[in-house]
This record gives sequence, C-alpha cells and structure tokens, in this order.
Amino acid sequence: MSNENIEIKSAAVISTGDELVQGRTVDTNSSYIADKLLSTGLEVTSVITVGDYPERIAWAWRDSLANADVVISTGGLGPTADDLTTETLSGVAGVEAELDEEQAQRIRDIFATMGRSMPENNLRQALIPVGGVVIPNQLGTAPGYRLTIPTGDRRPTAIVLPGVPREMMPMLEETVLPWIVSQRSDKRRYFARTFQTFGLSESALDESLAGLVDESEGRLSFRASFPQISARVMVLGETGEAESRLDKLSAKVRGRLGGAIFAEGNTTMEATVGRLLAADGRTLATAESCTGGLVGARLTDVPGSSHYYMGGLVAYSNDVKEKVLGVSPTTLAMFGAVSEETACEMAAGVRRMIGADIGVATTGVAGPGGGSDDKPVGTVAVAISAADIPSGAVATMYQLRGTREWIKTLASQVALDWIRRHLLGLDPLELQFGRRVGRGR
Amino acid sequence: MSNENIEIKSAAVISTGDELVQGRTVDTNSSYIADKLLSTGLEVTSVITVGDYPERIAWAWRDSLANADVVISTGGLGPTADDLTTETLSGVAGVEAELDEEQAQRIRDIFATMGRSMPENNLRQALIPVGGVVIPNQLGTAPGYRLTIPTGDRRPTAIVLPGVPREMMPMLEETVLPWIVSQRSDKRRYFARTFQTFGLSESALDESLAGLVDESEGRLSFRASFPQISARVMVLGETGEAESRLDKLSAKVRGRLGGAIFAEGNTTMEATVGRLLAADGRTLATAESCTGGLVGARLTDVPGSSHYYMGGLVAYSNDVKEKVLGVSPTTLAMFGAVSEETACEMAAGVRRMIGADIGVATTGVAGPGGGSDDKPVGTVAVAISAADIPSGAVATMYQLRGTREWIKTLASQVALDWIRRHLLGLDPLELQFGRRVGRGR
Repeated sequence: MSNENIEIKSAAVISTGDELVQGRTVDTNSSYIADKLLSTGLEVTSVITVGDYPERIAWAWRDSLANADVVISTGGLGPTADDLTTETLSGVAGVEAELDEEQAQRIRDIFATMGRSMPENNLRQALIPVGGVVIPNQLGTAPGYRLTIPTGDRRPTAIVLPGVPREMMPMLEETVLPWIVSQRSDKRRYFARTFQTFGLSESALDESLAGLVDESEGRLSFRASFPQISARVMVLGETGEAESRLDKLSAKVRGRLGGAIFAEGNTTMEATVGRLLAADGRTLATAESCTGGLVGARLTDVPGSSHYYMGGLVAYSNDVKEKVLGVSPTTLAMFGAVSEETACEMAAGVRRMIGADIGVATTGVAGPGGGSDDKPVGTVAVAISAADIPSGAVATMYQLRGTREWIKTLASQVALDWIRRHLLGLDPLELQFGRRVGRGR
Repeated sequence: MSNENIEIKSAAVISTGDELVQGRTVDTNSSYIADKLLSTGLEVTSVITVGDYPERIAWAWRDSLANADVVISTGGLGPTADDLTTETLSGVAGVEAELDEEQAQRIRDIFATMGRSMPENNLRQALIPVGGVVIPNQLGTAPGYRLTIPTGDRRPTAIVLPGVPREMMPMLEETVLPWIVSQRSDKRRYFARTFQTFGLSESALDESLAGLVDESEGRLSFRASFPQISARVMVLGETGEAESRLDKLSAKVRGRLGGAIFAEGNTTMEATVGRLLAADGRTLATAESCTGGLVGARLTDVPGSSHYYMGGLVAYSNDVKEKVLGVSPTTLAMFGAVSEETACEMAAGVRRMIGADIGVATTGVAGPGGGSDDKPVGTVAVAISAADIPSGAVATMYQLRGTREWIKTLASQVALDWIRRHLLGLDPLELQFGRRVGRGR
C-alpha cells in the first residue's frame, strides 16, 4: 500500500454485463456496494450500468472517473471474449495489461484441484493493468485490482471486482473497504443500529420518529423487507464517542417505537421466535390452513429449529381439519372454517396431536377467490393454544389486504408474532395495515 | 400523437432516488424496462442511477439524451421536496413546467374518494413541461409524460414515469411501448417463447442448445430463477412470418432439451403439478421433514389448489414421524430418518392418514449442522406413494449441495418434479447439480 494517501470524498459504481441491460438479471451488486460505502461515510454519486461493449464501458469509466474519487466496478472479469473490463480500463488509463505470474499459477492450481487442466481463456483473468494492486479473490478464479489513474490534477482510483456476488462481497469487505477507510483523512464513519418492526406502516413509523434524529446527529432510514420494516439509525463520528451517541439515540427510538420493535440487528421474526422458544425450553406445533405450510417452512429456515419445532399439520381441506385435527363438525358448521372458534380448535388439536407445549393455527381466505361479503379475501384468524392459557386457546381475526402471496406471508408473520407475544406476555398484535376484527376469543 | 415519426434506434434508462444510491432499495425498474424494450427490438445502451440531487439528475439526463433516441426515467415524481425530476428535466430542456388542470383535478378527485382533501404538495405532481404529452397513471397520483427535446439535429425523447413499480409497469405496457413501436420505422420486434427447465445446469443447457439458434435467426438466453432455469428463444421479425420461424425453432429446442423442460411460458413447477393433478382429478398429501412445510406452501401459492391439495404433515421430529405418520421404529432404527425406507413409509403413511390419492415425502439433512460421513449435509430422500405403484411407494436419495435455504428449496423442487413425473409416467429425475445416490427402492 502506497504511503501517499489519496483523499476520497466521493464514490461511483459501475456494473458491467449484457444480462443487466437486457433485463435478464437484476443488479444487486451496486445496491450492496452503495450500502457498504455509506457505512464508511461515502455516498455514491452515480451508478452506471452498461452492456459488454468496449465503447460503452470506456464511456462509463471516463464519466465516473471524472466525477468521483473512487470508482468501483463489478463484472467483465470472466474468461470469455465478452469480458472486457481490464482491456477497456487499461485503454482508458493509457497503460498496458500484463500477466501476473502469481495469479496465473493460482488459477492453474484451482483447475488442478478439480482434476482439470486450465482452459487457455482463463489465463486472461490474470492480466492486471500496469500499476495495479491485486485484490485477492478467495472464492473464484478472477482476481480484482486497484488502479490509481492520474487525471489532470486529480488522482481517482479504479477498483475492479468480479461480478459474481458471492466472490465480490468478501473482497469488498476484507480488502476494499478497509483500504478506502485507510485513505480517507475524514476518519469518521457511520455507526448503525437496526430495529426490526412489525405492525406499523412505513408512514406511521416515520411519524413516530419524526424530529427524533437531527440531520447534524445522524440519519434515520427505513427499509421495507415485507413483511417487516427495519428502521436504521446511523450516527457519523469516530469510535467511542459515536457509539455512545448511538446508544442514546437508540434508547430514544425504543422509547418512541415500543412494542412495534420485535428485534434488533439483522434478523427475522422466525429467528426471534426460535430464540425465545429455545430459551424457555418449550416446544411448538403448527396447524396451518391458508398459509399452507409457510409458518413451518419459515420456522425451519432457522438452523437448530429442530430443538423447539416438532412439526405440524397442513389442514388445507375441512375434512382434514375435522378428521385429523379433531375440529368439531358443529364448530365448522356454525362458524365456518375461517373463524376464531375453528382456529382455537385447530391450535388445541395440533398441540394435543403432536404433544407440543404450544400450538399455533392459521385459517383464512388467501384469495383471489373464496371470499364472501361476510368473510372477504384477506380475512384470517390466528390462534394460540398453551397450558398457561386458562380457556385453552385464544384467537383473533384480522382483515388483511393484498395479493394471495401477500396475504399468506402477512398471515404467517402474524402467527409468528403471536407466539412471540405469548412467550413475552405482551398485548395482542394491533395491525396498522389490517384491522383486528375478531372478538378476541 | 405527432404525425411526424421520430426514428428510435437506441434507448437509455435513468433511475432516480436516494434509496437506490444508498443501497436501501434494489433497482428492479430498470431491469424490467430493459427486458420489455428488448422485446420491441431495442437494446438499452446504459442505465444511470442517481440520487435526489438536481445537478446529478441533470447530468444523467444530458448524458443519456446525447447517447440515445429515447430515454426512460423512473422516480422523482412524488409530492415532496426531494422529487426533482420534472423541475430538473424542464431546466435541461429549456422549457417551463405548467400545471395541467385536468391532471390537477384528477389528483383532487383521488383524495376526495379517500375522504381526504389533497395536501398542497400533491399539486406539484400535475406540473408537466411545456410540450409534454401526458402518460396516464391509473394506479397512482403522478401522471407520467413524454417530451421530445430537440438537441442539435437530433430529436431524442424523454419518457418520464413514476418509480412505484406497480404504477410504472402498466404505463409502460399500455402507453409507452406501443408509442415506441409506432415511431420505429423498423417494425420488426422480438417474438419469444420460454421453456422452463429443471435438472440441468445452465452450462449443460448451453451445451445442449449450442449452435441451434444462429445470430441471424434470433437470440437464445437463459435466466436462472432458482430452482428452475428458463431458456428463452427470441426471433426478430414481423407478425406472421416471425411467429412461424419461432414455432420451428421451438420444435428444435424441445427436441434437444427433451425431458428437462417441464413447462412452457411464465409458470412454476407447483402450477404445472397443480394443472396435472386437476386434469387427472387426483388429490395429494405431503409429508415433509427437512423441507419443513415448503412443499405445501408452494402448492398452495397456486389459486384453486384446494381442489387437489388436501394437506399434509410436517414431521420435523422423529417422534412425529413415528407416532403420527406411523413410520415403524424398526425402520427408523435400522435405516435412519434420512433414508429411502423412511421416506417411503412417510409417503404411504400420509396418504393413508389424509385419505389422498398420492402422497409425497421429503426427509433430509438441510444443514449447516446435522451431517455425518455417511449422510452429509444435502443428503435428501424423496418418495411417492400411490395406488398405481406396485410396492406402494418408491423413493430415491439425492446428494444436494448449498446453503440450508438452497437445499430446502431444491428438495421441494425435486419433490414436486417427482409428482409431475409420476403423473406423466416419466423416468425418475436425474439431477445435474446433485447426484442421485439411492438404490431407487
């Protein structure tokens, strides 16, 4: 690493590949890089995406290098004739690309490990522009590199990475970001804390937190990853004092959002529920109608879930609700399959059948068909059964809105949140984007 | 619409929004637009993404208008102070923006329907640059517009759309694309057919179809949407003759890919299985261990699935496999939970328990823990039970690779494909990216 620091105040991103401009692949790399750069205090001024054409790639580089201090590109480092990044960038920089013997040998070794000889093409991947500093790629053949390109009195740096996300991400985290941070004289970076919320809409969250974080103190942003919305507080500063300010702001956020927060950090409702069940040493069974197995699928996405999740029933037909779960035909006839009464019997029935501590049930109208005036599409009843519930089971009905997929996912989130609230002794869930309509049996 | 046609040979896309350059939202709009433009025969030369800064938005417009005949932008049409597209584009075009009275009234009416009065801000959304032609937005408040911007001897057209995908997509399809097609003297467009495949890797598909579609005839592209890969054949030409050429090429593709194709068009494995079950009038039950409910969740994503899917069991613990499904303790002791023997008993057991025509079962090691030398992570057994299977049930074991989520999803796809193959009387699935290791009991 050079002793001469380069001031980095702005960044630009380039994504290269025909599949991107033909709409075959969605560009997730630039989003990922932008997010990571922001955590170092750098905002991305532009993202340019071009296909595998030399003149367009050259235009993207010239434009970006003219407007930003560091330009990070992904794509175009493969072994085929369409992979043009190094050749084009070398041209723009006015240097030759030379074979890096160490990288060439590494690529040969990789193929040897797979019992194959290296195809001639792959040698191109070891071509590095003169003056470039290799960025190691532990998970693929193509090394990345960093190249400072004097332009007038400016010295922007090109950072070239492979397009495969799985390869690019560790290279960014382990080599690129630390290098950028080391170069910046502004040693401040963003320290963040993320709050996972469920129940409030994004505008309600926005209103709740209005005026809490002053622009001079930091940033507040929301990211909707249905069915949850995360609120992220970011504070700009240096280690120690910034973290202390972050703690104070976080306490204020918790005060304002209260029960809408179900977890902190990068996690999910199913992982949160799993942690609580494991801590309590309690087991769970699921009885699903409209969600069709989604609650079980989500629970089992968490490694180690076999310690608390025993299994359950997908009771998609009324026959199965009755004959396998033991829902009384009278209940089905009087209240219907989509009712708090039926949900309670499903939850109690599966708890008994599976022999778990807690049973949770969902039954509803996922749509688009199947609705009635009485129970339109999106009507969903959720119930919990447990030994510490005096009546044996409690249920509530919600009126949800959306597509079939939306309603199923939301219903599964409501069911998981009910388990969480039961374990923590919290009030029942009030949904902003779905009314609670039941009598709360 | 002007009588004077504008020649359109190239297109560029602009995506506007802080959330995009800060990495909070992934840009799916440009991918969607690029894909749709390609079907009209237009390739996108660049996609530029910028944040909500006037000078950057202006740079993006100037650059794109200089390099393309039509520039489509999404974002920046909201009611807030950060929404800068119209103001900025008007400046670049050297015109004023004027209030469109019809659109202003429409926005007032929308709020009135919701029982609210229109916030002052929203009036900004009715500002249209002088010379602009409104593009109606049926699903939101902000109209889009088309504006031709004479630049030297060129006449590129700016097309401005809202950033909300659900609003943008119909506007693109119903107004923008037809307008573009009407302007192009080259009346050729792409006619496409999509083949959904499962079992072959992308490079194996590529090899199978090598040399089939000559560049002069059309294009062949692959899109991986795990766990399936779609192969799309596109032929450039005019209605009638191009469709006839497409039919001939499609027949060749079917000939080459054979059994790897499970459906044509934009569909899924679960929808395909559903159509076959419904056509046969047969019912299905699922017994899931490692997939945890995912097979049921996928089946029930299909509207009308209650006609053929009765439900099933998530037998996540061995206790449940034994006590609820009736898997013999001897089988579990001798062969283990992850075995073809256990899978067969699970499939037969759930068929009996639910009373369905067909039972399907999954049992495996999803990882990352739980593997052994004998049965490493990714070992999955799948079984089918049906009256027309002499022994009652058949099973095979596969060795899959990947993350927990990858293995679960792949296993669910294998299970669904087994049902499909059984209903069609096809050979068992040979997986390219997972070896078939069982004895095929």
